[in-house]
Amino acid sequence: MSEKENVLDPIVSLCKRRGFIFQSSEAYGGFAGFWDYGPVGCELKNNIKAAWWRHTVRLREDVAGLDASIIMHPAIWKASGHADTFADPMCMCRACKKLMRADQAWDIFDEGATSAALAALIADGRADAGKTANWCKGRGKPLAPNLPAIARAETRLPEIFGDIPACATPRELFTLLAQDGGAEAVLPCPHCGGAMTEPRPFNMMFTTIVGPVADPANAAYLRPETAQAIFAQFPNILATSRQQVPFGVAQVGKSFRNEITPRNYTFRSREFEQMELEFFIKPDEAVELLHGKVITLADNPDLSEPQPAWGWEVWHKYWVEQRKQWLMNVVGLPENSFVEYWQTPDELAHYARACVDIQYAFPFGVQELEGIAARSDFDLTQHQQHCGKSMEFFDEALKIACKNLDAAARETFTQKVVADWTSRHKDTEKARAFVANLFEGKYIPHVIEPSAGVDRLALAVLCNAYAEETVTDEKGASEVRTVLRLSPVVAPVKIAVFPLVKNKPELYEHARGVFKKLQRRWNCFWDESGAIGRRYRRMDEIGTPWCVTIDFQTLEDGTVTLRERDSMKQERATLNALIEKVDGLL
Amino acid sequence: MSEKENVLDPIVSLCKRRGFIFQSSEAYGGFAGFWDYGPVGCELKNNIKAAWWRHTVRLREDVAGLDASIIMHPAIWKASGHADTFADPMCMCRACKKLMRADQAWDIFDEGATSAALAALIADGRADAGKTANWCKGRGKPLAPNLPAIARAETRLPEIFGDIPACATPRELFTLLAQDGGAEAVLPCPHCGGAMTEPRPFNMMFTTIVGPVADPANAAYLRPETAQAIFAQFPNILATSRQQVPFGVAQVGKSFRNEITPRNYTFRSREFEQMELEFFIKPDEAVELLHGKVITLADNPDLSEPQPAWGWEVWHKYWVEQRKQWLMNVVGLPENSFVEYWQTPDELAHYARACVDIQYAFPFGVQELEGIAARSDFDLTQHQQHCGKSMEFFDEALKIACKNLDAAARETFTQKVVADWTSRHKDTEKARAFVANLFEGKYIPHVIEPSAGVDRLALAVLCNAYAEETVTDEKGASEVRTVLRLSPVVAPVKIAVFPLVKNKPELYEHARGVFKKLQRRWNCFWDESGAIGRRYRRMDEIGTPWCVTIDFQTLEDGTVTLRERDSMKQERATLNALIEKVDGLL
Repeated sequence: MSEKENVLDPIVSLCKRRGFIFQSSEAYGGFAGFWDYGPVGCELKNNIKAAWWRHTVRLREDVAGLDASIIMHPAIWKASGHADTFADPMCMCRACKKLMRADQAWDIFDEGATSAALAALIADGRADAGKTANWCKGRGKPLAPNLPAIARAETRLPEIFGDIPACATPRELFTLLAQDGGAEAVLPCPHCGGAMTEPRPFNMMFTTIVGPVADPANAAYLRPETAQAIFAQFPNILATSRQQVPFGVAQVGKSFRNEITPRNYTFRSREFEQMELEFFIKPDEAVELLHGKVITLADNPDLSEPQPAWGWEVWHKYWVEQRKQWLMNVVGLPENSFVEYWQTPDELAHYARACVDIQYAFPFGVQELEGIAARSDFDLTQHQQHCGKSMEFFDEALKIACKNLDAAARETFTQKVVADWTSRHKDTEKARAFVANLFEGKYIPHVIEPSAGVDRLALAVLCNAYAEETVTDEKGASEVRTVLRLSPVVAPVKIAVFPLVKNKPELYEHARGVFKKLQRRWNCFWDESGAIGRRYRRMDEIGTPWCVTIDFQTLEDGTVTLRERDSMKQERATLNALIEKVDGLL
Repeated sequence: MSEKENVLDPIVSLCKRRGFIFQSSEAYGGFAGFWDYGPVGCELKNNIKAAWWRHTVRLREDVAGLDASIIMHPAIWKASGHADTFADPMCMCRACKKLMRADQAWDIFDEGATSAALAALIADGRADAGKTANWCKGRGKPLAPNLPAIARAETRLPEIFGDIPACATPRELFTLLAQDGGAEAVLPCPHCGGAMTEPRPFNMMFTTIVGPVADPANAAYLRPETAQAIFAQFPNILATSRQQVPFGVAQVGKSFRNEITPRNYTFRSREFEQMELEFFIKPDEAVELLHGKVITLADNPDLSEPQPAWGWEVWHKYWVEQRKQWLMNVVGLPENSFVEYWQTPDELAHYARACVDIQYAFPFGVQELEGIAARSDFDLTQHQQHCGKSMEFFDEALKIACKNLDAAARETFTQKVVADWTSRHKDTEKARAFVANLFEGKYIPHVIEPSAGVDRLALAVLCNAYAEETVTDEKGASEVRTVLRLSPVVAPVKIAVFPLVKNKPELYEHARGVFKKLQRRWNCFWDESGAIGRRYRRMDEIGTPWCVTIDFQTLEDGTVTLRERDSMKQERATLNALIEKVDGLL
């Protein structure tokens, strides 16, 4: 692990010690980029996934679920663009032969040598001060042992930046350098100072061969995202789920990316889990034909309940709000722990209308937790072209609405759409065909995509919950208490049950009875060994919100001691009062 | 699909029509061996997995969970034996170039040409009649169009079987033929009658390259089973979970096998999901030292509650019973739908003490649903040897018990173990080292492995639930009702809510209120369109156990019509009575 990860050490240590997360294949020396969730870790992860599924699918009538295969027809990745463009530019050092992502070679420099160069460029008016500061934010420390190499790079940087247009973002600087092969001339190896090869694209999809013949023609990929299966199965889901646009399709599952340098613990790994929703909406033009208007953000709409006349902009904002509410109210991340970052027009993919990154302030920097993208009709259109099957939705209400339009009204509408599309550099003929199709009630739905990573969310939850605090023990001595302040919904164990002593059969049996009763409702933990204080500490470390102790008074009046994790307050309650209380909070 | 699969047609058709199962990548022509679960299919599968997790992990104190990565260190598959021996013998036709599993080429013949040859061999005393009948059972029909090829094979069979020992099983016949390369001389291609190559091993693990360098040294595998991660992480789980042997580790997750001929719908696919438990127990010798005896099946033990003196045989039987109970009482498979098949000594893997296959009578034949194997200490021993880390458990009680043994008692015990091991063709020195270790309280646990396939269980559940019955509709006409009699626990939707009419606001709003209330507890479905009878039929087809209709009487007395799927009986109940009833059944 690099120095950047030291900030995570207390969390990594707790996760290992208490069985949240282990290195994959640890007994074999580990396997970079792969992680295993232990007994409490898998419960935490399962709870996050279950809460997402419940709120995204089960409590909504307009979302259907899907569980598609990880390996799919390779043509799907041709259609999606992943086969051709899902690549990181990668450099190799000609001297020490180390491979690294070209942009990460930049990372290594940016607060060290390049920070000086960037400062010079800002002063010179060629780099934008705000954007540069933003880009550098959260990228960790330079590699101190490489100072000679850095110094050499620094002396050469001004000559490199000579061709760069004024006020470029650091990303643009890098792209331009990579495009003209200049990076080779630019960056020495951050490890040894040697000359680097120019960046070459490296496809991040894992490849395998399906079937018995080891022929590249039989290559298939491990999905790098779950989303494409949703697009490929759109016609089947439409035909079987009784849904009408607008509606969504949700999926939770593993994805794989052959990251060149997996890092930041479980944040960027080669195997990870996603929770993705593709929410299909009408094109704004269809909304206008149906409702005579399109509600935009300028109308300052109430986002609590979807409305038929919403355009894509409002739907996008709606899902940003929905996701934030879920992160705060269900997962328990405080509002001030994350940043809503709206990508600037020059950062957006060519087909995207808008994209919001919800970023979390991890100890190693502010990093993306999930993205909510307005992807237009790009994906379904690509698939329709590649597979030859229609990805259109037939909107009966739209067809009926269009029947009332006379030729003049149709032409006016067509002209308006053509003008709009042309202003967005789109094809006039395509605009005309699109409108003609609309008049028949047919269109390819647009999509809003909230896409979250389970592992990075679990990591954010752990980082947010982790606390060390000085408390005073029963004997008045002060000690450090490590506690995970997990929200009850995601906590692996909800209630721990302790018999005060284990050598009194009546008390012990009563406690077993309480445990068995609670265990049928929630994931519970039985602990009969050690002092109560030590048992509390063990539960604090795995984030168990409540501990119940059965003591001698229980045998008299049926009340138990209920101890709350965060306040450490203890109160007596009957079992039924306790069940009611916990039920209300879960 | 082959003829064998026609028996599944009604189920395949329903699964497609109602959104249980789609072909993976169907819009792209499908992708053999891969399947997607649609909106109701993924709920069914999730319910099966959740019920397994609940009963195997959450309701037990002696089982911990794990969620490990699919791609692990390749050395794990060397240790497990999969890298070297996880292979199917495969033949290619030299004429038509078709590839097939050598044993499946046999399948194609066994009820056609070879059935005559096998009958002759039985009559001749060289094949065992019972075993041959057993082996042939459930293997489908011969390929009628290939009669000329079959006839040719038939005339050559007696010469081939000349060298086979008397009373061989068909499996032995095949193995011998494959070993001496005789299969080439034996079987013509079942597709074209051409000559076949001799069987060659084909490793069924999918291979990929991890990291940026496309070097075979960086090859890694997609796991072909979830079990090995449990063994590899045994030390970590032992250290963090506060468990003592006996205890288990459970995992649910995807596995991958590059099947040459995936078939029988989702039964044998290339990507599938497993639910595996590795339950670690003390070696019988440790039990004897601790308790002075080892309880075996000969003692006719009560299997309801584990006992300290149980030997491996009783633990194995215990898990067979646990699994059967779960399949019957939770999943809802009737006892007479499955067969408990105890593998014969010659069928067992060399390290296995016993293995029970729970077989289900699928429409295409009796096939394995899950296996419960007593695997001795083979797996942990293999990993200890390969990774160099200790896989031993330190049993303090055992060490204390052994302290009381004098030298004579130790030698008597050692002699007994040596005699026992020698009788099982095991090494004397290893037996001595094992006993010396035991006296120190240390041993590598043995393991009982109940291993179930989620997809084949889901398929069994669908096959078992599927029924077509003639019923009389409201107008007295008879019609065929298709119904899935799913157990409520696994049913995708628990309750459907219908407003009798949708144009009475008061009734409609009341119905929405009922729906919203029920939806917070269970997965519910709202349907307001069409006649009530048609709405019932739609719910019957996805196996929804209860339908609730809100009608005019509801507005008067608060009662709703509760219609039960299987009996189609309707009764009036208050909402609270309904909730209580459903709660009791879930």
